[in-house]
Amino acid sequence: MEYIYLDAASTTPVREEVAEAVNRMMTEEFGNPSSLHCLGVKAEKEVKLARARVAESIGAHPSQIFFTSGGTEANNLAIQGLTRTRGTSITTKIEHPSVLETFNSLERQGQKVNYLGVDSGGKIDLDELKKVLGPETRLVSLALVNNEIGTIQPMEEVIKNIREKAPKALIHTDAVQAWGKIPLSVQKLQVDSLTLSAHKSRGPKGVGALYIKKPELLQPVLQGGGQEEGVRSGTENTPGIAGMGVAATLLPGEEGLRALRETREDFFQGIKEKWPGVVRIGPESGEGAPHILSLSFPGLPAQVLLQAFSEQGVFVSAGSACSSRNKETSYVLQNLGLEKEILESALRFSFLEDIKLEQSREAVKRMIRVIKRLEKVMGNV
Amino acid sequence: MEYIYLDAASTTPVREEVAEAVNRMMTEEFGNPSSLHCLGVKAEKEVKLARARVAESIGAHPSQIFFTSGGTEANNLAIQGLTRTRGTSITTKIEHPSVLETFNSLERQGQKVNYLGVDSGGKIDLDELKKVLGPETRLVSLALVNNEIGTIQPMEEVIKNIREKAPKALIHTDAVQAWGKIPLSVQKLQVDSLTLSAHKSRGPKGVGALYIKKPELLQPVLQGGGQEEGVRSGTENTPGIAGMGVAATLLPGEEGLRALRETREDFFQGIKEKWPGVVRIGPESGEGAPHILSLSFPGLPAQVLLQAFSEQGVFVSAGSACSSRNKETSYVLQNLGLEKEILESALRFSFLEDIKLEQSREAVKRMIRVIKRLEKVMGNV
Repeated sequence: MEYIYLDAASTTPVREEVAEAVNRMMTEEFGNPSSLHCLGVKAEKEVKLARARVAESIGAHPSQIFFTSGGTEANNLAIQGLTRTRGTSITTKIEHPSVLETFNSLERQGQKVNYLGVDSGGKIDLDELKKVLGPETRLVSLALVNNEIGTIQPMEEVIKNIREKAPKALIHTDAVQAWGKIPLSVQKLQVDSLTLSAHKSRGPKGVGALYIKKPELLQPVLQGGGQEEGVRSGTENTPGIAGMGVAATLLPGEEGLRALRETREDFFQGIKEKWPGVVRIGPESGEGAPHILSLSFPGLPAQVLLQAFSEQGVFVSAGSACSSRNKETSYVLQNLGLEKEILESALRFSFLEDIKLEQSREAVKRMIRVIKRLEKVMGNV
Repeated sequence: MEYIYLDAASTTPVREEVAEAVNRMMTEEFGNPSSLHCLGVKAEKEVKLARARVAESIGAHPSQIFFTSGGTEANNLAIQGLTRTRGTSITTKIEHPSVLETFNSLERQGQKVNYLGVDSGGKIDLDELKKVLGPETRLVSLALVNNEIGTIQPMEEVIKNIREKAPKALIHTDAVQAWGKIPLSVQKLQVDSLTLSAHKSRGPKGVGALYIKKPELLQPVLQGGGQEEGVRSGTENTPGIAGMGVAATLLPGEEGLRALRETREDFFQGIKEKWPGVVRIGPESGEGAPHILSLSFPGLPAQVLLQAFSEQGVFVSAGSACSSRNKETSYVLQNLGLEKEILESALRFSFLEDIKLEQSREAVKRMIRVIKRLEKVMGNV
């Protein structure tokens, strides 16, 4: 039985062209970019090319792109690296752990952090934001696309408010779930820093990037040989970086994203038709990022469903991958004000951009079979 | 013309089996180890296997191995992560930048660090060490094998002294240039933490590991999803980790290392025969790690030699790769008390363990041709 992968927000398989680039950089062009001989120079050129490609994908200048070991390191670097001079920070209660935990650690070191609540769709309240903004605000960090429910924050309005009420504040956005999923331009967003991760968008694991408008503001987290203009020391992960560069050139365009959204809606309608009890969590159908769908199956425990789906070759998540080993229900979903019954039966479905309609429909079929069988079993208990 | 790679201390090409593992984990078994479905479980198993393999290669328990993005991060994690409670630290003046710069940053934060000098062979003076050791010593960090000249510190004696004079001190060793180059056992060494890097030993770039005897002593540097038992957050770089695991099983044995040392000595003798002016820097022939040879060609500038060798397909370094873009002469060599003339003409030759005698002899031929030609040109100036 062929499996159907509906966990693309956790990680993705690399594209063939990416695998080729990684392989070439591991074997033939394996030089250290810091080496001055031919092999080193070639490796350096590949890093430069990848930097230009990633920059272009978000409308940045290559000198504003710094490669890291992934999204977690990029978020840590931005938040730790921009708050060394103290001041108050603002974020939301539904950020990725690499943002939340970094702020928690700053709090333990004596810094003040405000955590904004969200509505049932996952959006922050602009009035609440305005209340906590002030001249002492150093950093505001907000995910562009939430990783569990796909909410897109209204960044234009948010940023307008921040610039008005706290002109000295820096704005960071975690765009890990946005890269290749919604139009993304740092020119348009006007953020000060932005996090990307390769493996969420068909690139390799172990590599990410931080865009930073003014690199001189950043204090490095990792000290060493001064690679990446001193922002991020350590021998460059040239296979990963080249792979991320290739992935940047293969991100889906507008049409692909529209098709992705349509497939997702078809999937949802397919389930709803056969099992009307299903509850959609987070953004409405037209809103949110096109690849994420959060659904609840009241009466059926999420973990049981997940395992039963997996046995039928349908791979999904309960909340995010990061938190799935955690037995508690997702803090993101808790913050949406959902009832316990909904919370305990919530699953995240996330789609690769090249999923075919027959695959998603086959997934619906298998899932409905599982659900009906489970209902019987549960009913008999 | 086939090139001859004599820069193995900068980086190495991955072994075929490593490339296969990386490729498999990027494409077929691409799951996120935190995902609970089959693909996630498989990925988790691969990480577990790699952890066991790396642990076995240094005589550690798998629960003491934490994967990082490389040697730089592992050194930062050990040094930053073990010194949060303050106290004085001790290191040497010839450590890798990822150690030195991390200590420099601790100094800027108000901590006290002693930097030990070394003799002309690169070894520290035990009496100097004893003088700075005391009850306030928190951390002693010492590279097992120096990356530029190959010096092996007399760790047994060093550690005996530390345990006597500073029983509460923790001992960290940067073993990046030791892994697969000299016998390595944490049981025998009795250090508290130890850094490994995959790409220096035929594994992939972008992955390394920190051995830590008592993980509970460590404060994480990167905050987030709590992967690696909370020591190192971020989606696991499963291709890199699996690749490092495979590399750990392919490290050369005693016989391979003896052959490597013999090839190096044959190389040195070959040069000396044709150009007796060559000066050996650092450890004597029988001493030091088997893969590194530091030589000076008085009268011929290192950068000119390096470029001319590269044109003839012989790839070497001036100092370490990390510092090669730095125009100053190597701080490691400066600390050996060498004359300016020797310093300015110093090159590092470092050998892959599977280099063939005919390759190293061919390199000697090409180099001697270059040297004789350069001598003429320089003489005519």
